Amino acid sequence: MLPATFPLNAWYAAAYDVEVGRSLLGRRICGIPMAFYRRTDGSAAALEDACWHRLLPLSLGRVEGDEVVCGYHGLVFNADGRCTHMPSQETINPSACVRAFPLVERHRFVWVWPGDPALADPALVPDLHWNDDPAWAGDGKLISVKCDYRLVVDNLMDLTHETFVHGSSIGNRAVAEAPFVATHGERSATVTRWMEDIEPPPFWAGQIRHARGYGGRVDRWQIIRFEAPCTVVIDVGVAPAGSGAPQGERSAGVNGQVLNTITPETATSCHYFWAFARNYSLGEQRLTHELREGVAGIFREDEKVLEAQQRAIDEHPGYRFYNLNIDAGAMWARRLIDRLIEAEGAARPVIPPRAA
Amino acid sequence: MLPATFPLNAWYAAAYDVEVGRSLLGRRICGIPMAFYRRTDGSAAALEDACWHRLLPLSLGRVEGDEVVCGYHGLVFNADGRCTHMPSQETINPSACVRAFPLVERHRFVWVWPGDPALADPALVPDLHWNDDPAWAGDGKLISVKCDYRLVVDNLMDLTHETFVHGSSIGNRAVAEAPFVATHGERSATVTRWMEDIEPPPFWAGQIRHARGYGGRVDRWQIIRFEAPCTVVIDVGVAPAGSGAPQGERSAGVNGQVLNTITPETATSCHYFWAFARNYSLGEQRLTHELREGVAGIFREDEKVLEAQQRAIDEHPGYRFYNLNIDAGAMWARRLIDRLIEAEGAARPVIPPRAA
Amino acid sequence: MLPATFPLNAWYAAAYDVEVGRSLLGRRICGIPMAFYRRTDGSAAALEDACWHRLLPLSLGRVEGDEVVCGYHGLVFNADGRCTHMPSQETINPSACVRAFPLVERHRFVWVWPGDPALADPALVPDLHWNDDPAWAGDGKLISVKCDYRLVVDNLMDLTHETFVHGSSIGNRAVAEAPFVATHGERSATVTRWMEDIEPPPFWAGQIRHARGYGGRVDRWQIIRFEAPCTVVIDVGVAPAGSGAPQGERSAGVNGQVLNTITPETATSCHYFWAFARNYSLGEQRLTHELREGVAGIFREDEKVLEAQQRAIDEHPGYRFYNLNIDAGAMWARRLIDRLIEAEGAARPVIPPRAA
Repeated sequence: MLPATFPLNAWYAAAYDVEVGRSLLGRRICGIPMAFYRRTDGSAAALEDACWHRLLPLSLGRVEGDEVVCGYHGLVFNADGRCTHMPSQETINPSACVRAFPLVERHRFVWVWPGDPALADPALVPDLHWNDDPAWAGDGKLISVKCDYRLVVDNLMDLTHETFVHGSSIGNRAVAEAPFVATHGERSATVTRWMEDIEPPPFWAGQIRHARGYGGRVDRWQIIRFEAPCTVVIDVGVAPAGSGAPQGERSAGVNGQVLNTITPETATSCHYFWAFARNYSLGEQRLTHELREGVAGIFREDEKVLEAQQRAIDEHPGYRFYNLNIDAGAMWARRLIDRLIEAEGAARPVIPPRAA
Repeated sequence: MLPATFPLNAWYAAAYDVEVGRSLLGRRICGIPMAFYRRTDGSAAALEDACWHRLLPLSLGRVEGDEVVCGYHGLVFNADGRCTHMPSQETINPSACVRAFPLVERHRFVWVWPGDPALADPALVPDLHWNDDPAWAGDGKLISVKCDYRLVVDNLMDLTHETFVHGSSIGNRAVAEAPFVATHGERSATVTRWMEDIEPPPFWAGQIRHARGYGGRVDRWQIIRFEAPCTVVIDVGVAPAGSGAPQGERSAGVNGQVLNTITPETATSCHYFWAFARNYSLGEQRLTHELREGVAGIFREDEKVLEAQQRAIDEHPGYRFYNLNIDAGAMWARRLIDRLIEAEGAARPVIPPRAA
Repeated sequence: MLPATFPLNAWYAAAYDVEVGRSLLGRRICGIPMAFYRRTDGSAAALEDACWHRLLPLSLGRVEGDEVVCGYHGLVFNADGRCTHMPSQETINPSACVRAFPLVERHRFVWVWPGDPALADPALVPDLHWNDDPAWAGDGKLISVKCDYRLVVDNLMDLTHETFVHGSSIGNRAVAEAPFVATHGERSATVTRWMEDIEPPPFWAGQIRHARGYGGRVDRWQIIRFEAPCTVVIDVGVAPAGSGAPQGERSAGVNGQVLNTITPETATSCHYFWAFARNYSLGEQRLTHELREGVAGIFREDEKVLEAQQRAIDEHPGYRFYNLNIDAGAMWARRLIDRLIEAEGAARPVIPPRAA
């Protein structure tokens, strides 16, 4: 058996809120096929996506009231996973049930807890409040990437790669050579990089000119905050050089939050949810649209690199990776993930092939 | 080694008669690649589809007279599998041969026996006579389904699924809730379901109005007969309610035979041959065409369910399936299949990689 | 571990000269992903196609001067494989390097040596001089074939298959039945076949009429010369019957050299480089074009057979192949290949997953 690459006792983004409705959505989370739907009161529910009877994915069936009807023989399951109807049969086998997963809806995401339900504390949902805070405007996407979710975390924890992967938009030599500071806490790690008094890269030059009418040199920041196991918020922006941003006075600048949460689908594939929220030009739909597609273009460049990297890793089993100075943030993220996995240890919640 | 899922000592439909001709047809039956063709007298033959010399599939070669010429170096094999010519060589290696398989043509299908040729008794070919009986009209198709052939048998042995999978055509609640009787013999199992005095579902309402000008309530029957290992004939129809159909007087009704024979291609894929024969409106080509395509549409709904089920089974190795009342027929079918496999036991005919 | 199917201490054609330039070309040779490019002085270089840092294929990066910049974090490697720059870091880890491979450019091919660099003697590059000799004109292609490269060698060493695979162009019964002589040396094997005083097959009838205005019977030759491990030159042509060609006087005839060198990509796939050079009608571009496409069509027929054969071999592990008289040349080629592999024996150069 391969070593675990993700903890089970954690909240994972399973879907954007609008993806879950009155028809069933099938999606694999941490290796477990799940079926998502909303009840008549609008609340979302998650069941294991395999009928107790013949294993047909319940997501091929339909929602009836607050329950799910299997698309093969019509067994009905409620949101707790208990079978409430069997065809041509009065008595229902008491073992007839499928797993139901703890679920919380917050910050425009549906979060699911694949591990021990007793530990599913909603207070542990990662903070992505910018995603539905009226002081911020933005939009995002879900992309499917064929790599270990940790490679995406590595990628986000070191923005040196912007220079080489995204040279045409947000990257320039200033990023690759700027010094940074890496710190960490119990479940989080932070990498802070200030580039003071620089020429802004094309993307930020356009934003600050558009929003503030400013065209000169800037102080630029990137504050990357990782929250284990798989959420990364990047506080990014520029302000006029010398206007006090490094000291906390950002009002003359423009500020964005790149929200990322990357849910393992399997050990080598993931659902990557991201959004870009900004605190300027809030009412401009056109800008929202433009930024969303612009960021999507940047992430497609990452996707290509990440999938190539995964294929190379698959080909070099046991390869011991070398770390550079720039990897400090990623090393801390990996260590925090490893700790969560180890903490589950022998008590790691078993995912039985079937719940019964 | 995985446990056997099909007996080898059985007749399996390998092709519709019209599929086999003077060019070679390659098809895998019970895991064995076979090449089919017709001799000059029109009789069909089946050889192992791999040349003795370099393993090139013989189906890439051509028929010459009653023999097959390999498409690589021109070795010639007769219908018994014996090599009769080698290039640039006078003496033919006496070991140069490929397996030839017993073959019978009956009821519009070419049947092949992958097991011990000594046991290949033509009397054991399943009865599908409706397929070329002038008192019946119909047509069918071959579809390739990526699932264990036994999942198709399960599907056919319990028509409860009509309500959920085929709700828009032949299914309604009456089917799922109607009582049924399951019986069995040495090599066959039967499930009989009568739905008396019901509103006919859309399909049958149309047929009895068209053929008999009748528009009222009906007695509906479904008599499913399984013949081990993989043939299922479903006697279906409706007659005016109270006209005596349950007692055997069907002349005021309309009657169809759904013919199904499902040949393992591999352990997890099959060739599914089906046809629909009717005893009414015999001369109407348009109706034959319409029924064939209508049934094909219904079977596509099954195909989707069956392949999803196979993928789920592959993901849950060792899952112990629970049976409901509705599974009585399928359970008997499985038991009869298991008996045939067990009977081969240690004497199970070995399929050597090569015949020589 | 599977037995080796190719030696590592050998020159393998990796690309046509024009394929390698100032952007990176990624190609797998003998199982090793390699990245090819040209330096500012035009000389070609080959590096292992996986960055020392995070394994990203270097071929996704870019060439800068004489060096390669990784497309992820910007590490720079020179043509010797040594890292010369790391982002945000003054000191370079001395272990930071990737493998560099000996490389020779000759006869319009870029040749690479995957084994022990100390043994990479340029004198061992196979002779394909017709490919850039002004006394010959021609052109060729690279095709990717999903089979063990040795199956291509087998195919070329016995032209009996022309009759059955290429019956519509170059094959006729005369080939399959003509006697041949097989000889061999230390690293080469030769099969010579003369078909004297025959009707020329369609292809050659056209060539000799076009070039020499001759329309009668011919003496035809096929002299196949294999050079271990994977180069085959076939000297082919026809001359007027009785004009002395078998004795060495070919001036009244037309002569072609079919150049083939087949580089293992993996154990079951290969890069097949071929060209057809002729010593007549040298200045006719149209003929060059026509011959190139004609030969390409013939090789597509082989490709189909070779890939079908590989699939059959995969399905029959351990199958002991039978040899016919016609296999004499291929048997010698196999024996010479085996000798090269055995000679590497325990000293077989290890391909480490990583060079460091």
